[in-house]
Amino acid sequence: MEHESNADIPLFLKMNAQDNTAIIVNTGGLKQGVQFSCGLTLIQRIPQGHKVALSDIQPGEEIIRYGEVIGYAEKLIQKGSWVKEALVNLPTPPELDSLPFSTNLKEVRPLEETYTFLGYRNSDGTVGTKNLLGITTSVQCVAGVLEYAVKKIRQELLPQFPNVDDVIALNHNYGCGVAINAPDAEIPIRTIENLAKHPNFGGEVMIIGLGCEKLVPTRLNDGNDDDNILSLQDEDGFVQMIASIVKMAEQRLNRLNERQREVCPVSDLVVGVQCGGSDAFSGVTANPALGYATDLLVRAGATVLFSEVTEVRDAIHLLTPRAVNEEVGKSLIREMKWYDEYLNRGQVDRSANPSPGNKRGGLSNVVEKSLGSIVKSGTLPIVDVLSPGEKVRKKGLVFAATPASDFVCGTLQLASGIHLQVFTTGRGTPYNLSMAPVLKVSTRNTLQEQWHDLIDINAGKIATGEASIEEVGYEIFNDILEVSSGSKQTWADQWGIHNDLALFNPSPVT
Amino acid sequence: MEHESNADIPLFLKMNAQDNTAIIVNTGGLKQGVQFSCGLTLIQRIPQGHKVALSDIQPGEEIIRYGEVIGYAEKLIQKGSWVKEALVNLPTPPELDSLPFSTNLKEVRPLEETYTFLGYRNSDGTVGTKNLLGITTSVQCVAGVLEYAVKKIRQELLPQFPNVDDVIALNHNYGCGVAINAPDAEIPIRTIENLAKHPNFGGEVMIIGLGCEKLVPTRLNDGNDDDNILSLQDEDGFVQMIASIVKMAEQRLNRLNERQREVCPVSDLVVGVQCGGSDAFSGVTANPALGYATDLLVRAGATVLFSEVTEVRDAIHLLTPRAVNEEVGKSLIREMKWYDEYLNRGQVDRSANPSPGNKRGGLSNVVEKSLGSIVKSGTLPIVDVLSPGEKVRKKGLVFAATPASDFVCGTLQLASGIHLQVFTTGRGTPYNLSMAPVLKVSTRNTLQEQWHDLIDINAGKIATGEASIEEVGYEIFNDILEVSSGSKQTWADQWGIHNDLALFNPSPVT
Repeated sequence: MEHESNADIPLFLKMNAQDNTAIIVNTGGLKQGVQFSCGLTLIQRIPQGHKVALSDIQPGEEIIRYGEVIGYAEKLIQKGSWVKEALVNLPTPPELDSLPFSTNLKEVRPLEETYTFLGYRNSDGTVGTKNLLGITTSVQCVAGVLEYAVKKIRQELLPQFPNVDDVIALNHNYGCGVAINAPDAEIPIRTIENLAKHPNFGGEVMIIGLGCEKLVPTRLNDGNDDDNILSLQDEDGFVQMIASIVKMAEQRLNRLNERQREVCPVSDLVVGVQCGGSDAFSGVTANPALGYATDLLVRAGATVLFSEVTEVRDAIHLLTPRAVNEEVGKSLIREMKWYDEYLNRGQVDRSANPSPGNKRGGLSNVVEKSLGSIVKSGTLPIVDVLSPGEKVRKKGLVFAATPASDFVCGTLQLASGIHLQVFTTGRGTPYNLSMAPVLKVSTRNTLQEQWHDLIDINAGKIATGEASIEEVGYEIFNDILEVSSGSKQTWADQWGIHNDLALFNPSPVT
Repeated sequence: MEHESNADIPLFLKMNAQDNTAIIVNTGGLKQGVQFSCGLTLIQRIPQGHKVALSDIQPGEEIIRYGEVIGYAEKLIQKGSWVKEALVNLPTPPELDSLPFSTNLKEVRPLEETYTFLGYRNSDGTVGTKNLLGITTSVQCVAGVLEYAVKKIRQELLPQFPNVDDVIALNHNYGCGVAINAPDAEIPIRTIENLAKHPNFGGEVMIIGLGCEKLVPTRLNDGNDDDNILSLQDEDGFVQMIASIVKMAEQRLNRLNERQREVCPVSDLVVGVQCGGSDAFSGVTANPALGYATDLLVRAGATVLFSEVTEVRDAIHLLTPRAVNEEVGKSLIREMKWYDEYLNRGQVDRSANPSPGNKRGGLSNVVEKSLGSIVKSGTLPIVDVLSPGEKVRKKGLVFAATPASDFVCGTLQLASGIHLQVFTTGRGTPYNLSMAPVLKVSTRNTLQEQWHDLIDINAGKIATGEASIEEVGYEIFNDILEVSSGSKQTWADQWGIHNDLALFNPSPVT
């Protein structure tokens, strides 16, 4: 990456020697006539994060960033001019049936130093990073009653159990009025099931059902019809419902309160990575730094989940070579094809991603967004592929297939078992999860300055030369260990702001 | 309807002279050998709400309830035996291209007495039944921040505005990570737009956006970019976001606090009807009584919305004759076809509705459920058909096409502008909405006794002969007026339990 270190002089960022475009670094953009130290002169104003043509690009010629084709010129783009979105014709997505597998497998060199964190060891060998009572629901009908009960439990019971961090209702929009036997129904069902088995809940199960729902509660309880399930239709009215839920919670809080943190190896950690509200800096600062942290985690023996099929699809030719074997390569292709088909069914336009904000931030199309997005996954081999909502089963770098929607991706990664999510953002989003902390990394200095009480780590300093990718990568890595150990809180957790679960249900409602 | 009045003696309910089945009324069911006064003897035990064969039904012969074919006998069903679900083969749904229009149009006789209620008159002529500050969102990213702000507004601001009932965040799972230009995207978008324009919000608009979302906030503000919109990305951090939201709310609370209830004609009311957690009594007690109330409301000049496409589809041949003209008839068919296609896309099995609870309650299949369900719509002509989430535009009986899912139906009916929903239930559900009250009607005495602090009206007494359909119909009608006037609260509103909005998004997430 080429950049200059003084923020007062005109700066552009060129990612690869082959690139014929670069992005403008300076806040507020640069005016017509501005000259860079290399001699390039802008022939029109270009906003921050948007692309400048480094040479004349002929009509139909390749437009290159990250050393990859992000599109073809609609008409002549003059050297020094703004490579606007409308000038970039979208290339066709990579053909899925002829991609190479396992041709770019880097060796995973273990870190020299041993890293640990403080976690709650569970009886099944997993580790929790929070100590939570999670109350699951088999149907959305019970949500209002459960919210009432949770409020009461928080106020009246929780203070008696100081080792328990919180009580959480796993409310969702599923369970009835849905096509429970449709082929894709397994996705929301296993998601609900796996959410309830999250290691932060310490193996305590508590399921609130209604009694007549399609999603039978025993399906969430390994087929058992025991005292982990409470059906509201069995209760004698509202007051009784609340009393029964509170009593059931108290038994579990007693047990959870016995949990203590102990030293655990980093290999017990499962970390999710995601980006949202992306801009042209995402692929330059925050995502490369997160990619570096991903490599560190994998080298330390941990598991890292990366996701977002719609933002991986156009860069899939860069990922199949990193599939550790043919089986994993084929699984990657399977998930891409499933999603292609799902989008076709709904007649989805590819141009709807990036969002308007992404585009204002300088991202021309989904190809450019994808190239910047997959950098989060680092450089090491992909050892496994999870279908949406499946539990993680291997250590190392894993592709967890999910939509790119922040909330749906977050919910599915939680179901897969992440202890913490690292979330990079260029435009800014206050997104947070209640089951696991979300560490927010900004792509630009200005966002960190503006949202000083929401952004946890600033990767913007990479663009201005104040820090290296490696340095920010280590900062992310160290913060992951501190937040997982409970010795540091994210800004969003300090404020106590959380988003609801958002299930992925590709089947019709009925 | 034939029934006997003493609860101690064996009772069955036969709905139509042509029926060869009837349902068992007695709590706990009836044993083998029990003899009815007509001479029929049970040859096996039959649970409450389940069907008894009134004559031998030969293999392949029609099984009739409500005077309609609910299926065909799988094998010989002997007189006095239990007509179990497995014995009833599902008939094909009515063919849509040859249904008669407008052949059964009853005259709408205005009620002799004039009925009124106390409502809040809005400047556009509509009337509110609550006085609420509704805060809309253009994207789910802002939900955590908005919840924090709403809590603060409720605690610190609301007590200063005694005429305002509550502050409500219209959170939802839409706005980004969605196929915003897909053909069906108009459904969730117009739903969000119309929810924010609900008459209970008094014309005050307040939209919280993020800034980079696909659903541009001006789309929810009639295209205007004015001070009704607050984008979090324009704010300097979290503390500033909360302060700005609170300030924006205070201006609107000041104006809302000036609203006063005044006498309004019943013709200003828009009432939604729905059923959920149905059993075999739904179509016998609660739904017929609600149908009677529907007729009363329409005769008084009000608007009634009935919905639930998947529970109307199999009885559509009984509704097209009630379409007031060909245009309305064709609109009914259009909505049925759209839903058939939507379900086919997702490879949905028709047998998944009824739910397991419905089946335990005695409903064999969706045909039987549908016949019981459409009774809620009364007997009068259907004057208009709304596509999902459209605003109501005509007075009288309207079919508002929605899924049968309680929450999705409720949310869409709110978008269409209902002031109150009447919800009949056999199995029992604590479902409630925050924007408008939900009046709950039980189908059985036992449910009302068990859920004494959740059920508002008991229609079960119709089955035992303690009240007539007309009497319970008038009871519902009068309660609608009282609850709309604010002089009576539903049980669920007294407890303050509410379910979240659940949008209908038939398009893929991305």
